[in-house]
Amino acid sequence: MNVNTTSSMTDTIRAQAAAHASPGVEIVGLTPSFGPESVEGNFESYLAAVAVMDRVVRYDEPYDAVIQAGYGEHGREGLQELLDVPVVDITEAAAQVAMLIGRTYSVVTTLDRAVPQIEDRLRLAGLTGRCASVRASGLSVLELERDPALAVDAIVAQAREAVVDDRAEVICLGCGGMAGLDREITAATGVPVVDGVAAAVALAEGLVRLGLTTSKVRTYGTPRPKAVTGWPITTGTATGVRSTDAGRRSRGGDA
Amino acid sequence: MNVNTTSSMTDTIRAQAAAHASPGVEIVGLTPSFGPESVEGNFESYLAAVAVMDRVVRYDEPYDAVIQAGYGEHGREGLQELLDVPVVDITEAAAQVAMLIGRTYSVVTTLDRAVPQIEDRLRLAGLTGRCASVRASGLSVLELERDPALAVDAIVAQAREAVVDDRAEVICLGCGGMAGLDREITAATGVPVVDGVAAAVALAEGLVRLGLTTSKVRTYGTPRPKAVTGWPITTGTATGVRSTDAGRRSRGGDA
Amino acid sequence: MNVNTTSSMTDTIRAQAAAHASPGVEIVGLTPSFGPESVEGNFESYLAAVAVMDRVVRYDEPYDAVIQAGYGEHGREGLQELLDVPVVDITEAAAQVAMLIGRTYSVVTTLDRAVPQIEDRLRLAGLTGRCASVRASGLSVLELERDPALAVDAIVAQAREAVVDDRAEVICLGCGGMAGLDREITAATGVPVVDGVAAAVALAEGLVRLGLTTSKVRTYGTPRPKAVTGWPITTGTATGVRSTDAGRRSRGGDA
Amino acid sequence: MNVNTTSSMTDTIRAQAAAHASPGVEIVGLTPSFGPESVEGNFESYLAAVAVMDRVVRYDEPYDAVIQAGYGEHGREGLQELLDVPVVDITEAAAQVAMLIGRTYSVVTTLDRAVPQIEDRLRLAGLTGRCASVRASGLSVLELERDPALAVDAIVAQAREAVVDDRAEVICLGCGGMAGLDREITAATGVPVVDGVAAAVALAEGLVRLGLTTSKVRTYGTPRPKAVTGWPITTGTATGVRSTDAGRRSRGGDA
Amino acid sequence: MNVNTTSSMTDTIRAQAAAHASPGVEIVGLTPSFGPESVEGNFESYLAAVAVMDRVVRYDEPYDAVIQAGYGEHGREGLQELLDVPVVDITEAAAQVAMLIGRTYSVVTTLDRAVPQIEDRLRLAGLTGRCASVRASGLSVLELERDPALAVDAIVAQAREAVVDDRAEVICLGCGGMAGLDREITAATGVPVVDGVAAAVALAEGLVRLGLTTSKVRTYGTPRPKAVTGWPITTGTATGVRSTDAGRRSRGGDA
Amino acid sequence: MNVNTTSSMTDTIRAQAAAHASPGVEIVGLTPSFGPESVEGNFESYLAAVAVMDRVVRYDEPYDAVIQAGYGEHGREGLQELLDVPVVDITEAAAQVAMLIGRTYSVVTTLDRAVPQIEDRLRLAGLTGRCASVRASGLSVLELERDPALAVDAIVAQAREAVVDDRAEVICLGCGGMAGLDREITAATGVPVVDGVAAAVALAEGLVRLGLTTSKVRTYGTPRPKAVTGWPITTGTATGVRSTDAGRRSRGGDA
Repeated sequence: MNVNTTSSMTDTIRAQAAAHASPGVEIVGLTPSFGPESVEGNFESYLAAVAVMDRVVRYDEPYDAVIQAGYGEHGREGLQELLDVPVVDITEAAAQVAMLIGRTYSVVTTLDRAVPQIEDRLRLAGLTGRCASVRASGLSVLELERDPALAVDAIVAQAREAVVDDRAEVICLGCGGMAGLDREITAATGVPVVDGVAAAVALAEGLVRLGLTTSKVRTYGTPRPKAVTGWPITTGTATGVRSTDAGRRSRGGDA
Repeated sequence: MNVNTTSSMTDTIRAQAAAHASPGVEIVGLTPSFGPESVEGNFESYLAAVAVMDRVVRYDEPYDAVIQAGYGEHGREGLQELLDVPVVDITEAAAQVAMLIGRTYSVVTTLDRAVPQIEDRLRLAGLTGRCASVRASGLSVLELERDPALAVDAIVAQAREAVVDDRAEVICLGCGGMAGLDREITAATGVPVVDGVAAAVALAEGLVRLGLTTSKVRTYGTPRPKAVTGWPITTGTATGVRSTDAGRRSRGGDA
Repeated sequence: MNVNTTSSMTDTIRAQAAAHASPGVEIVGLTPSFGPESVEGNFESYLAAVAVMDRVVRYDEPYDAVIQAGYGEHGREGLQELLDVPVVDITEAAAQVAMLIGRTYSVVTTLDRAVPQIEDRLRLAGLTGRCASVRASGLSVLELERDPALAVDAIVAQAREAVVDDRAEVICLGCGGMAGLDREITAATGVPVVDGVAAAVALAEGLVRLGLTTSKVRTYGTPRPKAVTGWPITTGTATGVRSTDAGRRSRGGDA
Repeated sequence: MNVNTTSSMTDTIRAQAAAHASPGVEIVGLTPSFGPESVEGNFESYLAAVAVMDRVVRYDEPYDAVIQAGYGEHGREGLQELLDVPVVDITEAAAQVAMLIGRTYSVVTTLDRAVPQIEDRLRLAGLTGRCASVRASGLSVLELERDPALAVDAIVAQAREAVVDDRAEVICLGCGGMAGLDREITAATGVPVVDGVAAAVALAEGLVRLGLTTSKVRTYGTPRPKAVTGWPITTGTATGVRSTDAGRRSRGGDA
Repeated sequence: MNVNTTSSMTDTIRAQAAAHASPGVEIVGLTPSFGPESVEGNFESYLAAVAVMDRVVRYDEPYDAVIQAGYGEHGREGLQELLDVPVVDITEAAAQVAMLIGRTYSVVTTLDRAVPQIEDRLRLAGLTGRCASVRASGLSVLELERDPALAVDAIVAQAREAVVDDRAEVICLGCGGMAGLDREITAATGVPVVDGVAAAVALAEGLVRLGLTTSKVRTYGTPRPKAVTGWPITTGTATGVRSTDAGRRSRGGDA
Repeated sequence: MNVNTTSSMTDTIRAQAAAHASPGVEIVGLTPSFGPESVEGNFESYLAAVAVMDRVVRYDEPYDAVIQAGYGEHGREGLQELLDVPVVDITEAAAQVAMLIGRTYSVVTTLDRAVPQIEDRLRLAGLTGRCASVRASGLSVLELERDPALAVDAIVAQAREAVVDDRAEVICLGCGGMAGLDREITAATGVPVVDGVAAAVALAEGLVRLGLTTSKVRTYGTPRPKAVTGWPITTGTATGVRSTDAGRRSRGGDA
C-alpha cells in the first residue's frame, strides 16, 4: 500500500516487494484515491493515513496481510483496527530487521522535516533504544523518484557519517521510494542496508506462516458500532473524490 | 474545535471554554463536517484529525488560536503546519497545568481502549515523566454525554484509586465531554482537578498575550507546495460530504 | 521574586513581568534580604532558596501567585509547601510554553556551571523529553546585567547552534536577567524565543483564572507543626540579617 | 541450538522449528556437549553460552542461520562474532513478533529467578519499551518438560493476569521448552501467543531471503587473531568433555 | 553531619558511624545551629541544607571527609562546592552499596511525604535504575527516635512487601535515625539491609584511601568570588542564631 | 581475578590492588586456566567469564571477597550465584566511585569494539544515568600492556575530549591493564581519574567491614541442584585443560 498518489511509486514499491517475496506469494500494489503526490509532513501524513484506510477498506479481493509503505507516516494503528489480517509498517519492519543484524542502526531519509516524524513513529513503536540516529539526505521524495543516482550519493554520504560518527552498524533506507537502492549503498558503506519494503515482506510472510494476526483485546479492537459520517471518503458516485486506481498486481518473482 | 460530529458536545465544550476565558475573548465552537459521532480508537481518531483540519481550513473568519478539544486524539501537528496561530491540544494543556500544581497527575478517561492513545500522545508530547497513570472509567463518550451524574461517580472512583494507589496529586479529566465536571470531582477527591478545555483556554490566551506562535523552522513548517488531490475533503457542492455546521459563537462570559 | 540581592535585577524582572501581565494585574517585585548578589552554583542557589522563602513568608500583603524568577535554581518545592497560592518557576514556565509552540527547545543560559543545575531542574520537573540542549553563553549574571548588547551577541551565537546542531525549534532565555531580550533574539534567529518571566506571568495568571492551586495531598503538603529554630532567618530586630528591601510594585502596563 | 544438555528438549525444539519452517527448509537440532541439563540462573547460562558456541563451531556441515533456543540466556553476541550467518535468539524473536501484532506483550516463563535474566536480555536488545511484564509460572524447566498439561494451567493463569492487570495484548512463551503449547494457551486467553522458536524460524528465514547477515563493522566483528587456550572446550580425544551428540535433523514439514 | 537540630539524633548517627569506621578513624558528630528538629518536607530540607553548610564551614578542625546524614535531603551539591574533601550523602551511599549486593533495592523511609524527595534525590544521582520502590513506614522521624521497637515492626512490614511485591533484593533504611536497626531487620526479612550512615562511612573511607575528592572542573567548582550578604547565617555575636553545638567526637571503635 | 590468561597482567592488577588495600588486607592474584590472552569482544568475554568461574571455584583457600578485574566483561552475576562472599566488578566499582566525586564520568577504554560491551554492562548495572561517554583509545589490551607511555598519551587525548566535549567531570580507566596510570592522567587532565581495580578494592573492603554480602533471595540465589556435565571445565587429571597457575599473593603494602 503506497501512501501517496504517485502511481509510479506504487510500481517501484510493488516491484521491490515482489522481488523479495517467497515463491507463490502474490503482491498487489495499491495507490490512495486522494491525498498528496508525496508525503512530507504531518498534515500530508494524516491525510494519507485516511486515504490509505479508505483505499484498503474498498479493496474487495482476499489478501493475507497489508504492508503500509510510508516511512514514518501515521495510520498503521487505524488499519490494525479495521482489518483482521496483519498490518506491517515499513518503518518498524526495517528497524526490527536491522536490530537482528547489528547492535545499532541509523535511518537515512529524505528531507529534514521527515526526521521528527520518523523519530516519533519509532518512539511509539518502542524501537528507539538501538537507533543511533535519523538523518536526512536533503532530497525530497519526488527528487528521489526522479534521480536515483543522485539519491544514492546523498544517502551514502549520510550513511557513512552515521556509521562513523553515530556508531550505526546497519543503515535503514528511510523512504518507501528508496526501494531497490540497498545493494548499491551496502557496497559503498560496507554495512548491511535494510530496505523497509523488503523487510516488511519478510515479516508479513512470517506472521502469515505463524498463523498470527493483530491482537484485538484492547488497543486494536474493531471499531465500535456507531454513526460515522462520510466514510469511506471515496464513494461510488456522489462525491468529488472518485476512485480511479485499480490494484496493480503481479505474481512474486516476476518483478 | 470539537473532534466528533455530535454538535451537542460542541456546545458543552464551547460553554466550558467561554466560562474560563478572559473578558473580551470570544469563543467559537466548530464541529467537523464528517467523521464519527464520538471518537474512540485510532481509526476514528485519524479520520477525525482530517475532519478537524478540513473544518478549520474552511473557517474564514479571523481568529487568534485554535483549541483541539479531543483527549488523546491525533492531528495537532497537522493543524500546527497549516496555521500561523497557536494550536493547543487539551491533552497536553491539562497535563501541563497539572504539572504546575502537583508533583504527579493521573488522567481519568472514558473507555479502556482510550488509555493507550492518551499514553501515546503524552509520550510524544514529552509529558509522561510525572504522569502517575491513565485510568478508564468504563463509560463511552456518548454515555458520558447522556448521564453526567453517572459519569461523576465512575470518575471519582477511579480518581480516588489514582490518588491512593498511583500516588497522583492532581486529576486530569480525560475527555472533552467531561467539561464542567471538575468542581464536583475536586469536592469528592480533595485534590485539584484539571479540565482540559479550560486549561487549553488559559494556555492559548497566554500564548496570544506573549505574542508567541508555532515555530516554523522544521517540524511544523508550512506544507510544501505540491499536488494534493481531493483536499479539502468537504467542498462546496460537488461532494457527498457537505458542510452543514455553522460556527457557534458566543462572547466569553455569557456561557 | 528575584533570587539574588541585586535590586536592579528585581527592577528588570518586575518590569518584564508587568509588560506581559493582563490589564488589572499588579506585579510586586521582591528581593531577598540576604544571600548572593547573583546566583551561580549550588551553594548560592540553596542559600537563595532559603532567602526567597524567608522573604516571601515575611511579605504580608495579599497576593494571588508567586513567580520564582531564578533559572535552574532550588527552592520552588519549599515555597509550594509554605503557600496556598500557585508558585511558578521560570525554568519550568519557559519550557512548558516552548513545548506548546515547537517540537523541541534549547535553553541558552549564562555560565557553563549553570548548565547542570538547569538540566537537573528540568529533569525533576519531567520536562527534558523535548529539551534539545542547555547551552552556556559564557557570560556571568552580572556581566549580562551590565552589558545587554554583548549578551545578545553571545546568546544569539549559541541559539543559532542550538537550532542547527541540536535541532531546537524554540529558544528559552535561561536567566531571569535576560528578561526583555527575547524580541532581538527572535529577530536574529528566526525561531520563537521564550522569556521565562513573561511565560511565568502567563501561566500564573492562567492558574488564578482557572481557580487552581498547589495540591496539598502529599509532596507539597503544609509543613508539619514542629520546632524550627531561627526561622525566619530575617527577624525584626535581634539579628545581623535585617530586612531592608521594600516590595517594589507597579500596576501592569506601566512598566 | 538447544542451550541445555537434555536431548529430549532438543527434539521438542527441533520439531517445533520444523513445524513452522517453509517447505524446503531443513532444521538441524544441536545439543551442547557439556553444561547443565536445564539452564536456570546466570552461572548455568554463562556455561551454556560457551557450550553453545563450542558446539556450533564444531558443527561442520553448511547452514544458513543459527537459532539460539534459550529464553533469556547469555551468548547470542558471541555467536554473532564467530559466525557469518544470521543468529537469532528466541527471546528477541518472540518480542519482535509480538510487537508486530499488539501494542504490548508479556512473557510468561518458568521460575521466578529466570525473570531478571529475561528482563536484562530484553533491555540490552532494546525491546522493553512495549514489554508489559515478565511473569513466572513457578515451574522449573524440567517440570515443564515432564508435565505439559500442568504447564499449560500455570502459564494460562499468569497469562490471564498479564492481560488484565499488566495490560498485555500478546503473550510470549518464555522458555524454549514451551514449544508447542501456543495454540492451547491462545484458546484459553483469547490473545495471540508467540512461541519463540517458531518466531525465530520465521525471522531467520526472512533474513536469509533478504540476503542479510550480521554487521561486522564493530560490535560483532570477527574475533581478533590471538592465543586462546583450551578452545574449543570439547576436543577430539584428550579431554574429559567429549562430544557425544550428533546433529538431529529433519526436513521441515515432517515434524 | 546530622541535618536536624535534635542532638540525640546526632549521637545516634555518630555512634553508628563510629561502629563501622576502621581502626584509627575518628568520627565527629555535628548538629546544625538552626533549622527544624526533624526534617520532613522540602521547606525543612532546604532550610536544613543551608544550616548544614553553615555548620560545616564554621567547623575549624581538620577533617578528611563529610557525611551528610539526611535521607533524601537537599544540599550535598552545595557542600561539594564549598569543600575540598569528599562529601558523601547517605541516600546515595546506601543505594550504591545495595547495588553491589543485589540486583534491586527498596528504600523504607518514615512518612509518605518523604517518598517523593527520596525518589528525586535518587533520580538526580542516577541511581533509580535498580530501585524497586521507595516505601513509607508511616512513622515520623521523631516517633522513630522515641520508639525503635515500633519502628522495627513498621519497617519490617514494608520491607517484606518490598521483597515480595516489588521484587527488591536489598533493603535500604531510609532515615538517618534508623541507624542501628539493620541487624534486626535483616533477621526478620532474610535479605541484606543497608544502613546509610554505615554505608557512607565505608565509601568515605574508601575515597580517602584512594586519594580521590570532588572534581572541581564544572558543577562542583568553588563558588565564584562575589558579595554574599548574611553568610554564614550563624555569626559570632551579632545574630539571633548563635552556635551552641560543639562537635561531639569519639575515636572509632569506642562507640 | 584477572580475566585473561596473560599472567603478567595478573601481576600488574595484583600490585595495583595491593597498593590500595588497607593494612592487613592480603591480595591474591588469580589467572584463568584457559581462555584468551586478552579479552576483546563477546566471544572472548563469555569464554573468560566461564574460565573465571572455573578458576575461582577451584581456589580452596579462604577469602573474603572477589574482584573481577575485567572492564566491561561478562560473568559477575555467575560468580555472585556461586559464592557467598561479595563480588565486585571493576567496571561498576569505577563508575560508582566516579559518581561520588563528580556529576558525570567518562570511561576511556582500549579498542573501539570494547565500547559497546562497557555500555551494556553499565546499562545492566543501572549506572549509565551519569555516564557522559565511553571512548576508545584505539590501543589493544596487549599494546597497552607493552607500552604504558604510549597508552598514557592516547588515553589523555580521549580524556581531554571527554571533559570538554562530553562534559565529563571524572575519568574512569576502562581496562584492568591500565592499573597504575591514574596519577599521570590526572596530572594531564586536571580531573580525578578512577582506576577500577583500586576502586574495587575500596568497595570490597567496605562491604566486608559492613558485614554485607550478596543477597540470595532471587537473582543471585545459589544454583539449583542438577546435573551439570563437564564442570568445572578444568579438572585434576583427565582433561586437556589443566590448571597451571598458582595463586600469586602478597600482603597489602608490599607491592
